[in-house]
Amino acid sequence: MNINKLVEDFDKLEHEYQQLNRAQTIIGWDRRAMMPSAAVKSRSKTLGYFSGKSHYILTSPETMKILDKLTEAGDKLDKAAAARVRLFKRTADRMVKIPGEMFQKHTSLRIQSETAWERAKHANDWEGYRPYLEELVNITKETVEIWGYEGSPYNALVSFSEEGMTSEKLEELFGGIKEGVVPLVKKIAEKDNFDDSFAKASFPVDIQKKMNQELIGIIGFDLDRGRLAESEHPFCTSFGCNDVRLTTHYYEDKFLQAFFASMHEAGHGMYEQNIPEEYEFTMLGRGLTGGMHESSSRFWENMVGRSLPFWNANLEFVRGYFPQQLKDIDVMDMYRAVNKVEQSLIRMTADELTYNLHIMLRVELEKDLFEGRAKVADLSEMWNEKIFEYMGIRPENDTVGILQDVQWPAGMFGYFPSYTLGNLYNAQYSAFMKRELDFDKLVENREYDKILDWMRKNLYSYASLRTPSETMTALTGEEVNAKYLVEYLTEKFTKLYGV
Amino acid sequence: MNINKLVEDFDKLEHEYQQLNRAQTIIGWDRRAMMPSAAVKSRSKTLGYFSGKSHYILTSPETMKILDKLTEAGDKLDKAAAARVRLFKRTADRMVKIPGEMFQKHTSLRIQSETAWERAKHANDWEGYRPYLEELVNITKETVEIWGYEGSPYNALVSFSEEGMTSEKLEELFGGIKEGVVPLVKKIAEKDNFDDSFAKASFPVDIQKKMNQELIGIIGFDLDRGRLAESEHPFCTSFGCNDVRLTTHYYEDKFLQAFFASMHEAGHGMYEQNIPEEYEFTMLGRGLTGGMHESSSRFWENMVGRSLPFWNANLEFVRGYFPQQLKDIDVMDMYRAVNKVEQSLIRMTADELTYNLHIMLRVELEKDLFEGRAKVADLSEMWNEKIFEYMGIRPENDTVGILQDVQWPAGMFGYFPSYTLGNLYNAQYSAFMKRELDFDKLVENREYDKILDWMRKNLYSYASLRTPSETMTALTGEEVNAKYLVEYLTEKFTKLYGV
Repeated sequence: MNINKLVEDFDKLEHEYQQLNRAQTIIGWDRRAMMPSAAVKSRSKTLGYFSGKSHYILTSPETMKILDKLTEAGDKLDKAAAARVRLFKRTADRMVKIPGEMFQKHTSLRIQSETAWERAKHANDWEGYRPYLEELVNITKETVEIWGYEGSPYNALVSFSEEGMTSEKLEELFGGIKEGVVPLVKKIAEKDNFDDSFAKASFPVDIQKKMNQELIGIIGFDLDRGRLAESEHPFCTSFGCNDVRLTTHYYEDKFLQAFFASMHEAGHGMYEQNIPEEYEFTMLGRGLTGGMHESSSRFWENMVGRSLPFWNANLEFVRGYFPQQLKDIDVMDMYRAVNKVEQSLIRMTADELTYNLHIMLRVELEKDLFEGRAKVADLSEMWNEKIFEYMGIRPENDTVGILQDVQWPAGMFGYFPSYTLGNLYNAQYSAFMKRELDFDKLVENREYDKILDWMRKNLYSYASLRTPSETMTALTGEEVNAKYLVEYLTEKFTKLYGV
Repeated sequence: MNINKLVEDFDKLEHEYQQLNRAQTIIGWDRRAMMPSAAVKSRSKTLGYFSGKSHYILTSPETMKILDKLTEAGDKLDKAAAARVRLFKRTADRMVKIPGEMFQKHTSLRIQSETAWERAKHANDWEGYRPYLEELVNITKETVEIWGYEGSPYNALVSFSEEGMTSEKLEELFGGIKEGVVPLVKKIAEKDNFDDSFAKASFPVDIQKKMNQELIGIIGFDLDRGRLAESEHPFCTSFGCNDVRLTTHYYEDKFLQAFFASMHEAGHGMYEQNIPEEYEFTMLGRGLTGGMHESSSRFWENMVGRSLPFWNANLEFVRGYFPQQLKDIDVMDMYRAVNKVEQSLIRMTADELTYNLHIMLRVELEKDLFEGRAKVADLSEMWNEKIFEYMGIRPENDTVGILQDVQWPAGMFGYFPSYTLGNLYNAQYSAFMKRELDFDKLVENREYDKILDWMRKNLYSYASLRTPSETMTALTGEEVNAKYLVEYLTEKFTKLYGV
């Protein structure tokens, strides 16, 4: 077995796969940020064509042979090469089990479902959308059976999004959060709440755009190697470290929404901009799992952007753009407004404290679905009951209930845990960061480059070289657990609300 | 020989080629309209990868076999299938003669040359850029020899851009233009010229943007099936009839530049938007040659946009956006400003009358280069002498001389004739249009849909089904000739300048 020849073949294979991915990423960005909706059908054909090509490369017998031989060769490969082979094989192994026809059906179902959902959300038409979700859940269940799993079938989905994660481990983590957070939310609900009406005045979108461009530059997103554009739902996508695209969505009467969406997406973007360039066009050339990526985005959004030192430093920056609207507002007004705890219906705009309860609800429903305790037909009612249980309010319609999120319609089952995992990860590693850095002072002095340096050194520069579990152990000496997040939230919100 | 099976194989081949093209078109649009310059290197790798794939599909022995057999089958194919095979074969025949290595060298040379040119243009550094152009000319000469030609080697380049066109035919056409236009330019130069200083006041770019969006909608570009964005050099690109992208470039102190660039690109865009949808992803699914495309863009820009009826109808529309800047301006002021004849250095902003002389200069130099009468080293001096001969002025530097245009640096030799061919084509077919339509009245009543209908019926809907020569014969009963353009220009400018 000539190992050099094998590695060469693998390099070529990986490069082909990466270039096909790159094309789909650029074409997909354009679809969401630029494309007129009349072109949906034509664009799906193009995306379908290239996803078929990716499928072929991942599953051809030639590919399997190379991967098997390289996996056997094991320790003869250097660390980076071994990681690349492992990641490629992980993707290929899942793909090869799925018949080509089923894969294509799944792909086109996802696109149809997302389009149907958009319409249904605007029209509050759960019954009209339901058949799509039923089909998607069914094909996902089939997929899970083909992939195989240990323990719960939900494990197949969770571990696909977050390597090494299990349903059981999630239960333990959410259990810890629930125990720490639910009583705190109840106590806060008994207090008089803050007045954030000033933030709902008119903030012209043109000015918001200029402010958000400057904002992401201040925290360290490199505007010479990226762009901030607009789309219906904010997102981040990367075409290598020298070209990272963010979007946000502006509302004239809710300027804080775009503000934190921009910080959130910049948090994803800074991860991608700080991946070593030599990893581009390899399996290593992107941030780790969804959970680890969310740890970065939610770190910059929440731990930096919703902190008191941040507003000590940046109220005047924001007031520079909106002097009239904010003329009577002081730092504490702003700090309270961006941290107002509310028993609310909508995940996307939920505060830091209740956010994880929104996720918990979704994860519980996903488990019920895939562990066979619930049917799609019952989902709207189950949703409404659960949200009443956790928040004490009931959605007046499905648009602000089960139809609010794109993840399920897009077929991303098992992805929701990533958001809470992100919060758990960053609470845990930032506790260690704060032993090395005078975090509050850096935030207050706007020395965000120092914080970015820490993130680069400890997280970003590893790209996909380590697993989430290896990352957490290396950074904090232990596996992810709920203790740090509960401590962080308890300290912050106890003080803020005086409870 | 099973013809059905062959057609099926061809369909598949063509679809692959079209999808690879589509990817390159979207990725190329993004490169020019959205990409940060730091990503040039990474993006060329991706574009290089996909152009290699296209090359492979066009030149594989399998492809050649299918094409040869289908060409033999000839009249057993329906008209559309025969045209698709013919166009595919035309592209493949040229490509298959070029060794893969040479093709890749040419591709990467073009990208390097364009980047070097951008720098050199800003720095006025002809000597620094020259070696790139020399290499490009050399490899193009080699290509021409490999392709083969009858008569002048320049024919190989001209007929690549404009099917059926020859160096000899161009000489005849330009001869006719020269004879008709040069004396007229001289006479006008003796008259006092118009004052267009009002158009060089401050026209804020934000307002220009809104106006140009409305403008292209008024003339018939469907904004639900396309976009107008910004880039350094205006261009149009199409991802099928339901998604056509235009760009323009704004200057605060020259609002007419973006105005006419937008109309010009919308003229390209309306062509593409009106190609029948069933041709998408086939060789027929785009407008004809460069010359025929320019005939549409320059029709909307000049024959519509620079006409007196247009300004009778639209001065108030423009004044609505810029009431202060245009408060003392009447229709004749505007009509004169947009048609001011100047002996100028820059092609892109030249008036309708002298524009063709700028093209003539370039075509003469291209012929000198490829027929062996000139060397790249002499080109700057030759340029300056020629422009002095035609315009009576001399460039103070190469930035406004030989370095002004992107076409040569991008390796597009033989493309310049397209612009003048466009003017010849549209002058000729619009003479016939005007027998069917009360053109001036429609323009003045803003009934641009009626004009668009004529263009759709007679030109756009044929897509690439006919050759330029077949198109002109069908529309006007004769081959392209200089008579109509000279008549149109003479009538317009004699009257305007009273000469």
